Amino acid sequence: MTTHAGIVGFRGYSGMELQRILSAHPRTSPWLLEHRADSSAAPQPIGHAGPPRIPCTPEAVADAGIAVVFLATPPEVSMELAPQLLKGGVRVVDLSGAFRLRTAERYKHWYKEEHTQPELLAQAVYGLPEFNREAIRGARLLSNPGCYPTAASLAIRPLVQAGVIQRSAGVVCDAKSGVSGAGRKPSLKTSFCEVTENFSAYSILDHRHVPEVLLNTGLDESEFSFTAQLIPIDRGILETIYFRAAGPDSSAALLDVYQKAYAGEPFVRLYPAGAVPDLHAVARTNFCDIGVKLDPKSGRAVVVACIDNLVKGAAGQAVQNMNLMFGFGETEGLL
Amino acid sequence: MTTHAGIVGFRGYSGMELQRILSAHPRTSPWLLEHRADSSAAPQPIGHAGPPRIPCTPEAVADAGIAVVFLATPPEVSMELAPQLLKGGVRVVDLSGAFRLRTAERYKHWYKEEHTQPELLAQAVYGLPEFNREAIRGARLLSNPGCYPTAASLAIRPLVQAGVIQRSAGVVCDAKSGVSGAGRKPSLKTSFCEVTENFSAYSILDHRHVPEVLLNTGLDESEFSFTAQLIPIDRGILETIYFRAAGPDSSAALLDVYQKAYAGEPFVRLYPAGAVPDLHAVARTNFCDIGVKLDPKSGRAVVVACIDNLVKGAAGQAVQNMNLMFGFGETEGLL
Amino acid sequence: MTTHAGIVGFRGYSGMELQRILSAHPRTSPWLLEHRADSSAAPQPIGHAGPPRIPCTPEAVADAGIAVVFLATPPEVSMELAPQLLKGGVRVVDLSGAFRLRTAERYKHWYKEEHTQPELLAQAVYGLPEFNREAIRGARLLSNPGCYPTAASLAIRPLVQAGVIQRSAGVVCDAKSGVSGAGRKPSLKTSFCEVTENFSAYSILDHRHVPEVLLNTGLDESEFSFTAQLIPIDRGILETIYFRAAGPDSSAALLDVYQKAYAGEPFVRLYPAGAVPDLHAVARTNFCDIGVKLDPKSGRAVVVACIDNLVKGAAGQAVQNMNLMFGFGETEGLL
Amino acid sequence: MTTHAGIVGFRGYSGMELQRILSAHPRTSPWLLEHRADSSAAPQPIGHAGPPRIPCTPEAVADAGIAVVFLATPPEVSMELAPQLLKGGVRVVDLSGAFRLRTAERYKHWYKEEHTQPELLAQAVYGLPEFNREAIRGARLLSNPGCYPTAASLAIRPLVQAGVIQRSAGVVCDAKSGVSGAGRKPSLKTSFCEVTENFSAYSILDHRHVPEVLLNTGLDESEFSFTAQLIPIDRGILETIYFRAAGPDSSAALLDVYQKAYAGEPFVRLYPAGAVPDLHAVARTNFCDIGVKLDPKSGRAVVVACIDNLVKGAAGQAVQNMNLMFGFGETEGLL
Repeated sequence: MTTHAGIVGFRGYSGMELQRILSAHPRTSPWLLEHRADSSAAPQPIGHAGPPRIPCTPEAVADAGIAVVFLATPPEVSMELAPQLLKGGVRVVDLSGAFRLRTAERYKHWYKEEHTQPELLAQAVYGLPEFNREAIRGARLLSNPGCYPTAASLAIRPLVQAGVIQRSAGVVCDAKSGVSGAGRKPSLKTSFCEVTENFSAYSILDHRHVPEVLLNTGLDESEFSFTAQLIPIDRGILETIYFRAAGPDSSAALLDVYQKAYAGEPFVRLYPAGAVPDLHAVARTNFCDIGVKLDPKSGRAVVVACIDNLVKGAAGQAVQNMNLMFGFGETEGLL
Repeated sequence: MTTHAGIVGFRGYSGMELQRILSAHPRTSPWLLEHRADSSAAPQPIGHAGPPRIPCTPEAVADAGIAVVFLATPPEVSMELAPQLLKGGVRVVDLSGAFRLRTAERYKHWYKEEHTQPELLAQAVYGLPEFNREAIRGARLLSNPGCYPTAASLAIRPLVQAGVIQRSAGVVCDAKSGVSGAGRKPSLKTSFCEVTENFSAYSILDHRHVPEVLLNTGLDESEFSFTAQLIPIDRGILETIYFRAAGPDSSAALLDVYQKAYAGEPFVRLYPAGAVPDLHAVARTNFCDIGVKLDPKSGRAVVVACIDNLVKGAAGQAVQNMNLMFGFGETEGLL
Repeated sequence: MTTHAGIVGFRGYSGMELQRILSAHPRTSPWLLEHRADSSAAPQPIGHAGPPRIPCTPEAVADAGIAVVFLATPPEVSMELAPQLLKGGVRVVDLSGAFRLRTAERYKHWYKEEHTQPELLAQAVYGLPEFNREAIRGARLLSNPGCYPTAASLAIRPLVQAGVIQRSAGVVCDAKSGVSGAGRKPSLKTSFCEVTENFSAYSILDHRHVPEVLLNTGLDESEFSFTAQLIPIDRGILETIYFRAAGPDSSAALLDVYQKAYAGEPFVRLYPAGAVPDLHAVARTNFCDIGVKLDPKSGRAVVVACIDNLVKGAAGQAVQNMNLMFGFGETEGLL
Repeated sequence: MTTHAGIVGFRGYSGMELQRILSAHPRTSPWLLEHRADSSAAPQPIGHAGPPRIPCTPEAVADAGIAVVFLATPPEVSMELAPQLLKGGVRVVDLSGAFRLRTAERYKHWYKEEHTQPELLAQAVYGLPEFNREAIRGARLLSNPGCYPTAASLAIRPLVQAGVIQRSAGVVCDAKSGVSGAGRKPSLKTSFCEVTENFSAYSILDHRHVPEVLLNTGLDESEFSFTAQLIPIDRGILETIYFRAAGPDSSAALLDVYQKAYAGEPFVRLYPAGAVPDLHAVARTNFCDIGVKLDPKSGRAVVVACIDNLVKGAAGQAVQNMNLMFGFGETEGLL
């Protein structure tokens, strides 16, 4: 018997990735929940219809026996739909930023609009399994992390917790993302001719993913410099992180911090001291790959962290969270 | 009457760019100097032969009345050819790293091989016009800067000279380059399928361009963290530079440092406070574009510098240097 | 003294290319004519403002002393603006499809809307200089050819005129274009993630550029199979043309047809028998490059024609036409 | 119990794809067979070693209990290894062109070298399951089809067999492939900067895949015009096929020919009349997608066929063949 899983926003890149993963998952069968009419469909092969499609109403969701709904939607749509679905007894995995920042004040500061469901913030569980696996198991409203914060937090938190960063010198996170991170809605900034043979920085020092990293790592905003940048590729995030080491005096010693932090983790992979991953290593996988290099003389340290923004940075992590919430094996459907 | 200019290495990407620029330059006519046989030529249209091609021998160069030779060659070839050409009375613009580091010891340390022409190092003039225009005018052996150091030095030196960097916190330069920077020789690392839909870091903390930046800016190696990265594009370098500001308390105040440093410079362009350039802004131009952003509360500062690695980072700057060496207008053939 | 040239649609890709070419042209200075407000401007470097910008009104155009206006606009905008401008004594080069098809019926059939200025169709001169140079010199309303038809017509017309095609077997034109050919308006079809790592066919057998090729070559619609396809690149059109030869029995004999047709043409380049051009050969140039291959045993023949869709396929050809209309050298500003 | 499957050439693109598919296949476990030393390995994550690696010797293959070996090697290596492996009782799936053309004469004509194992040609079974499924089940030496011929043959054979082509007018196959089709060995032609923003034709009318299409479809060489072209993408083949229809008078009638030919086929998908697939539809799948368009008035017809050159065009089809040879479900590991 399979668990019925609904997807709202199934035409977006995260929603399409959810379809792909949930269709191959041994425990689930996906349903597409139509929230708004859209005529953008590409031609489909005859006889390959894809998952069933129903309206995204409480009744239709109940009739279909859906137990969990993934919201691959903008924050304002997530805030609209989450309460209805929860009321109907359905568990919700929200991939938007609506429930990540814990307080309505913080949300308003970074997202520049009012939070319309502040009372749900308290029950939302932040879903980075490597950090809070137990809480996730009991979640009814799961807030799936942002793509940049997933890689940045996995790379930085062990360093902060081990106390190996000279915090007065600050931490730099130079982040680069493929274009699918910007969503599927057409815009000039993501048009082919604007992106190809280009590379550009945006949201310098004020990206809305910054507070999420601070909450996850314990860094203060004044200690953390973050720049987002667009790579002319479809998918992948690579973050190059710079700091001054306090303690570790070799790449191997720095690597050891990560090996202790992530022993047994199925989706964090580490590289031999001095070697770093690239985006091909993680494409279409749920892995976060991390490599380190440290100059013993000066303590200058560099960490490179890579994920697929649509998998570990969105749909894959959402399914990892669902696996925990429903008592499935954590890696089912993800290897 | 035009100045005859020879190009060695005319089949490489810098050499092809030199052909393009020198063919359109009002004061020069290019000659292709064949150093080693090569059968890789693509088919050419009938009747469009391109510049004349002669052997790269002192006699042939003299017979053709060539006054300046551009060496778009590996360092070991430049060290072999430069003395012969100089002996023949020809001026030399070398685009390799052979003569950039001033001492044979430094060359050996970073290039991992002996310098075979140490006596030429003293007479080589480093060709970053914005920093040492006068010395360039008198050069007979001109050492053209590296691509990464051109952007990094133009972005960092004004900050060091104005004393606006908290040096104890260090300076981070996260550098990204198009693939043409790796040259035209086939290799797995620059094969299409390895590069497309990928992004990768290399030479972390030990790139051979680092000492050039240190010499140009006055930073110490322990203060400077540099990572080179490959963007899946043909051409362009974007460097994101991070530091803690000492003094300037706004983007505008930081911009002012650059406006003072580069007033009247024809090939440095600055952006309004808080705005930054992208690679399309500089593609196929000799400009170095710079933009800044500073957080007043914390002093965290970010500078973005862009060049076309084949123009301001190689062939264009080489022609800018030639213009100075021969008394032409500095911007001739470059706007 | 320079000729003042206005550009409507200067933010589109053809309009941007017109800016680039006209700014460097020795006989013209460009003016940007603002037809509709638009806030999409990217940040510009300080002190590099670009050409002057004025409203696109008859008064402003007259005040600025503008002698020619380029309409890089959709057909309906061209039909709106052309009569006003002509009335004001300005010559017009229209890059849209509004005036290419000679009759209002044909326009309605292929563009699916009424022609609003049928009386202007008679005076519009079709601007493919290689075919009707003399008429172009006297044009007041010049209709610049479409991008696909430029390459296809230059490749096919000499064959038809020389009678070397077995017409009963038909002519196939398999056409591929870079994405800039679709314009700069954001759409899902031209979004980066939809285009990268993809290749797709569209408008199979019913592309609106087909009638233009038929008019130029004398082929009948039933003889001509045309498919347009999108290459994941910025610019360039390559057309692979297939037919059965009647007469020529070698690649050289087929090449000879082109050599006779295009002797002395400055912007058509031919390749040695059996060799064909690629898109890098024509990028950012006004050339149309053509190569041929013929199998002597069977008469199967293939012609490959390449242009840059924004230059010979749009802005460059428009300037070539202006050069003829104003008595300038035909290649001025284009080599 | 799983079947042990060896891969020679596991570092190439087809070999890497075989690793990926066989690792996830429920019936097999892959072994890497080292034929020649190679030091090009990228850094691997700690503890993720991949499949076991052994020398490609008859003894090592026997010791490992390997039942089938995939040769993802050049033809000359396949001709060297196949006899040894067959002698050892191992079944062989060869992905090279060594055994595709049935006779040593034909091989010599198209591959320009002697066939060294002509006696094996008779027992080699050509592995296009949609055409000769039964013969494949009994194969000991399976010759896996070429990438271009797979798509072309699946698209053209039903038309020839149904007699719906006017053969005197010929059939045109304009083929486009991603760069991985050229293999992983570095070369100038597949270097990133040569390929990006480019599109080029090669092997016009004389590609070595032509005879395979002729054998599969029954067309004569004089009836078939084939051009191969390089798309700047990693993977995917799209073929645009043109002919004059004899019989069918609508897209639907033409589609019907395919529906009859491929009823029940698990890996051929058809599109609604007039709609065609693109490369995203088949990426990383074993499907061949086909769409048609026909002009009723003139009988001009266009068929678009798409595959992933590394899956249905190489590794996927090889596994489909293995499934048949070993009595597994034909789609196992491939959906």
